[in-house]
Amino acid sequence: MATDTEFGDLSNLSFVLNKPSDVTFETKPKPTIQSPYDVLVKVNYTGICGSDVHYWVHGAIGDFVVKDPMVLGHESSGTVLKVGDKVASVKVGDRVALEPGTPCRRCTPCLSGHYNLCNEMKFAATPPYDGTLTGLWCSPEDFCYKLPEHVSLEEGALVEPLAVAVHIVKQAEVKPGQTVVVMGAGPVGLLCCAVAKAYGASKIVSVDIQPSRLEFNETFAATHTFTPERVSAEENAARLLKETDMPGGADAVIDASGAEPSIQTSIHVVRRGGIYVQGGMGKPDITFPIVALCVKEVTCKGSFRYSSGDYKLAVELVASGKVDVNKLITGKVKFEDAEQAFSDVKAGKGIKILIKGPNEKET
Amino acid sequence: MATDTEFGDLSNLSFVLNKPSDVTFETKPKPTIQSPYDVLVKVNYTGICGSDVHYWVHGAIGDFVVKDPMVLGHESSGTVLKVGDKVASVKVGDRVALEPGTPCRRCTPCLSGHYNLCNEMKFAATPPYDGTLTGLWCSPEDFCYKLPEHVSLEEGALVEPLAVAVHIVKQAEVKPGQTVVVMGAGPVGLLCCAVAKAYGASKIVSVDIQPSRLEFNETFAATHTFTPERVSAEENAARLLKETDMPGGADAVIDASGAEPSIQTSIHVVRRGGIYVQGGMGKPDITFPIVALCVKEVTCKGSFRYSSGDYKLAVELVASGKVDVNKLITGKVKFEDAEQAFSDVKAGKGIKILIKGPNEKET
Amino acid sequence: MATDTEFGDLSNLSFVLNKPSDVTFETKPKPTIQSPYDVLVKVNYTGICGSDVHYWVHGAIGDFVVKDPMVLGHESSGTVLKVGDKVASVKVGDRVALEPGTPCRRCTPCLSGHYNLCNEMKFAATPPYDGTLTGLWCSPEDFCYKLPEHVSLEEGALVEPLAVAVHIVKQAEVKPGQTVVVMGAGPVGLLCCAVAKAYGASKIVSVDIQPSRLEFNETFAATHTFTPERVSAEENAARLLKETDMPGGADAVIDASGAEPSIQTSIHVVRRGGIYVQGGMGKPDITFPIVALCVKEVTCKGSFRYSSGDYKLAVELVASGKVDVNKLITGKVKFEDAEQAFSDVKAGKGIKILIKGPNEKET
Amino acid sequence: MATDTEFGDLSNLSFVLNKPSDVTFETKPKPTIQSPYDVLVKVNYTGICGSDVHYWVHGAIGDFVVKDPMVLGHESSGTVLKVGDKVASVKVGDRVALEPGTPCRRCTPCLSGHYNLCNEMKFAATPPYDGTLTGLWCSPEDFCYKLPEHVSLEEGALVEPLAVAVHIVKQAEVKPGQTVVVMGAGPVGLLCCAVAKAYGASKIVSVDIQPSRLEFNETFAATHTFTPERVSAEENAARLLKETDMPGGADAVIDASGAEPSIQTSIHVVRRGGIYVQGGMGKPDITFPIVALCVKEVTCKGSFRYSSGDYKLAVELVASGKVDVNKLITGKVKFEDAEQAFSDVKAGKGIKILIKGPNEKET
Repeated sequence: MATDTEFGDLSNLSFVLNKPSDVTFETKPKPTIQSPYDVLVKVNYTGICGSDVHYWVHGAIGDFVVKDPMVLGHESSGTVLKVGDKVASVKVGDRVALEPGTPCRRCTPCLSGHYNLCNEMKFAATPPYDGTLTGLWCSPEDFCYKLPEHVSLEEGALVEPLAVAVHIVKQAEVKPGQTVVVMGAGPVGLLCCAVAKAYGASKIVSVDIQPSRLEFNETFAATHTFTPERVSAEENAARLLKETDMPGGADAVIDASGAEPSIQTSIHVVRRGGIYVQGGMGKPDITFPIVALCVKEVTCKGSFRYSSGDYKLAVELVASGKVDVNKLITGKVKFEDAEQAFSDVKAGKGIKILIKGPNEKET
Repeated sequence: MATDTEFGDLSNLSFVLNKPSDVTFETKPKPTIQSPYDVLVKVNYTGICGSDVHYWVHGAIGDFVVKDPMVLGHESSGTVLKVGDKVASVKVGDRVALEPGTPCRRCTPCLSGHYNLCNEMKFAATPPYDGTLTGLWCSPEDFCYKLPEHVSLEEGALVEPLAVAVHIVKQAEVKPGQTVVVMGAGPVGLLCCAVAKAYGASKIVSVDIQPSRLEFNETFAATHTFTPERVSAEENAARLLKETDMPGGADAVIDASGAEPSIQTSIHVVRRGGIYVQGGMGKPDITFPIVALCVKEVTCKGSFRYSSGDYKLAVELVASGKVDVNKLITGKVKFEDAEQAFSDVKAGKGIKILIKGPNEKET
Repeated sequence: MATDTEFGDLSNLSFVLNKPSDVTFETKPKPTIQSPYDVLVKVNYTGICGSDVHYWVHGAIGDFVVKDPMVLGHESSGTVLKVGDKVASVKVGDRVALEPGTPCRRCTPCLSGHYNLCNEMKFAATPPYDGTLTGLWCSPEDFCYKLPEHVSLEEGALVEPLAVAVHIVKQAEVKPGQTVVVMGAGPVGLLCCAVAKAYGASKIVSVDIQPSRLEFNETFAATHTFTPERVSAEENAARLLKETDMPGGADAVIDASGAEPSIQTSIHVVRRGGIYVQGGMGKPDITFPIVALCVKEVTCKGSFRYSSGDYKLAVELVASGKVDVNKLITGKVKFEDAEQAFSDVKAGKGIKILIKGPNEKET
Repeated sequence: MATDTEFGDLSNLSFVLNKPSDVTFETKPKPTIQSPYDVLVKVNYTGICGSDVHYWVHGAIGDFVVKDPMVLGHESSGTVLKVGDKVASVKVGDRVALEPGTPCRRCTPCLSGHYNLCNEMKFAATPPYDGTLTGLWCSPEDFCYKLPEHVSLEEGALVEPLAVAVHIVKQAEVKPGQTVVVMGAGPVGLLCCAVAKAYGASKIVSVDIQPSRLEFNETFAATHTFTPERVSAEENAARLLKETDMPGGADAVIDASGAEPSIQTSIHVVRRGGIYVQGGMGKPDITFPIVALCVKEVTCKGSFRYSSGDYKLAVELVASGKVDVNKLITGKVKFEDAEQAFSDVKAGKGIKILIKGPNEKET
């Protein structure tokens, strides 16, 4: 067992949300290995996710309300400090990507291969569970993914949003030769385009209202870009299909924006018998073209976090060079500058900002 | 080839919609066999569908507008009068259920097993194609389904709405032991319950605002019934799940109503990872709880008409006694009384009214 | 924690296989609850499986070799004596069916919903793990299935072979209206027929060389029976398809025999694009018609034990009366008569013999 | 309609197999457009398939026996000479890949999206249907695939074997990040490797006994190669998995050899719950490790020709440069030298030899 003195030179300083817009730095008790399958990790880098910012601004996302102070952050890489007796897949010194949610392993969703739907999921920075903007982190071995030599710890922090995109694209059942439209070109939308490309899609249309994002995506993963106008969803859909030469509609449409007009356009863009995946969250209730969905026999799926195999594939896509997540990293800041980084993300600056762990003074 | 004189004793009187609320009886030219795979049939019985009534009242359904006079009807059984040279599966005198839509067999949906999504479908009583409220009907052999000896022609006319329900339940991927909620207890909703039962569902909850329909369904196919109140979708959903003892939600939810509150309730009733199928059509755009769908990773599918294997299974379900469609037949009228029958359906009288073919004077 | 004295009045007498044909009765240390999710159960009934008899006769099944004395038995029902702190689904006094294999919950097969393929499965009466022919048994809560009031403990012991059949039929993807052929009419073959019926199969052909088994199955679940002759697999297949009126072949074929001629016949009986499932184990290597499989594009699947949801559905099929497992119970004997019961099973007497637990003196 | 004089300057010289090893050149009657959906094509290039050679040598493949003289060849590209009135997707002068089998469009396999399993398929160079080693060819529009500008007619002739590989890899359900082993490095085996790569496989092991083929594949599509030795299937499998660092087995194994030892090794190479596809045809009956398949719950599928969407994807893979079929073309010969080309293929010379059409004197 770890003791207070075992890693005495390491800080467990944490970035804590007390209530909306009220954050502090606190030194939390150091976590210790609880099971022979646990791994103790020093956190190296943590990316900021839109949900982190949402908690910071609003103190809640839907039914998840921050009632007690909570450590933020869930997109992290780290270095193994200590392993339980039965751990076999990683060893001290290994660099790992951290999957931030631990399922119960016992409920029906867990036993049937959908642990993202676990009834008792403990997910970092989802109340009441503390997140990874901290010094030390304890995780079950099977939720730590060893990074190959040539993958950096910065890239390792991007594995989390990439796993989100992997899950979305799996839900969309993208296959080689297919046409895919992705609504929204934020980090997850961009990564969805890249993953769709890795899945062999031959036409990938990136849709956003910000020209700079589309411009970026033209060199990142999209084969086509489209800027919607302030017209009806049907009109935007018709123009998109015409400009991208998809007269029958797209095989798959992914909404990574959560924006009502995008969702409406999605249903008019997808082909008969096609798939539309809702990957982004916005307003809880929207106006939805249900009859269009019905007569085209569209399959519409929600996508929530990631599940079995998604993290492993995300690491593989980075390692093989199929998805170059480095291009998304637009900044790295010291742990002490976490709040400023949150402000920058809120202000839409850059694509993905990483916060160094509190023990990463030098690098 | 058939000639004008070949079936000289048979009438081809047809029930024609000229414009909204304006119907006439006309004797149309007799159809003839066009291909060696065609079958010529005398129409015996035709059920009235909500869509027929909708055309009668409004002259259109969504984008399908009745511009020229059109024969109504598409739920028919008949008797084979003549067969093309290469027809092997039916012979003169056979009693058949008629599948009313003929696909092109050449487009991508057709070649991939989804002919209901055919780009060039010719569907009876969908403009501009004439329907089956007529005396004689010509169909490709593979869209005529021989009725076994012990299945009546009246039951044969019910195969069409049963095939609609079969397709919906297939979309819902209902499996033995599952729980299914069906919104709406009109003919299709009732038949969805019966098909879900044939698929092995262990709990089948029928939801409607009309007590008489639920009462009927208790003896027909439902294991539970539920009457929604004028409260929020969340509240109706919570009470439904409590009263039917499904704390985690239903495995599958089918909306056979098209009603906005039913659709909203459906999303709150379905379990995490469950399936919701939109089988009924109402308002084209509704308020939809998209975030609830997303976080529960619900799969939502449209269901449109029927496709490969659905009619065959519908005949089999009737023949095996698994679905007793006779219970739905609440009236049979002469061809000359077709308009009155339409009025009765519009007024909500009975469940399913059959109209005899114009050559069925005696029976 | 349980202590030696806690259930002092209860025996933990066990039926132990020392080496081939050498069994003894031994009082084993009483198991205790190890985790807050564990349940301690008094074993009431245990059925004898062919694999138990195989170990008794040969001391091994394939690579699984009995090196140290091992308690036999894995088809059991029991009564809850004690529950861990976090157990919620069962309580003391509940009657349960016991799923006899505990997976690791951490490997890739476990996390992806296929725990039957777990790399570290601990399965009762598979070396080196002790089985359930004992007095007391400790199990994780989620591998204990509460029996409804009206389901007997005898039926509860039959849930295990029924779950085997459920898994096989799921592998065969049987759907309503389909035709299914089951090779072998031993307990698992009979139960496969019953489960196929519950899945809505319209034609179920039971194949065996023992007329008495087929005669039984005619009243149990089969719609047709077939006795193969000493002719080629092609000839048996042709006659089967002719006699059962399936000119194009069967939708699904299940081999529950493991016999080489049955497997060969299966491939010739299944239709183009159909599914054949290997559910029984016999000779490790057989002569197999691989080109016939290829040109008909048959899908051939192995089926191994059971996985997520299978036990739950098996309990439901018994509870709903869809599968009447009582008909298979041809004998119940005292614990002390276990060896005689094994001899009877080996000799082919009866269908399923149950052995009472050592604490079931009276009933 | 075309007449004898319409394309008077074009030859319809054909390469005819009379009986084993007896071929002649004959001028056959020119085909004419029979339906408004037909396309008349001048054949430009035809590749030689192993099945062509097999007919040439043996006069039969399994149950398909050449009883009457039959034109050989089925891997062709051509140029459109004339189109039926309703043809919309190609026009005169277009260069096309020809899908050589025309299904009935009416049987159950056709209607359910599996036309390769059509009961009445008319397939070029499968008795009694003539093949494409001829001057002119008539095809339904939807079985002609327009080649983009930058795809050559030589590449167009390779679309057929590529479509075979596409169908095999679809059967194998290959997904990004997976490991795939392909037995046999003939044209289809090589193309399976390339298609698996396009499907995102991260490890592709090519297995063959000819070092030169493996050497070629190292620069074509394989990430690893393996040469089996004359030891047991288990030993070869164990060494393969060790050398390629796949301790748990491969996700998918494709046999493109038809060789008995390869098939046996496949089952020992595939992981628990993995997929093995039989894509090559050899001996009709082989010794098969059925228990290994069962306990690992392997899914084994046959793959037969190609079906809905396969040709379209094959053209797309060539057009996008994902599969460079040019590398497989090791020779082009004049139509008059067809017999010598067959001899060369039989002798194992080169990878793929193309025969120019009889009207391709110059190029």
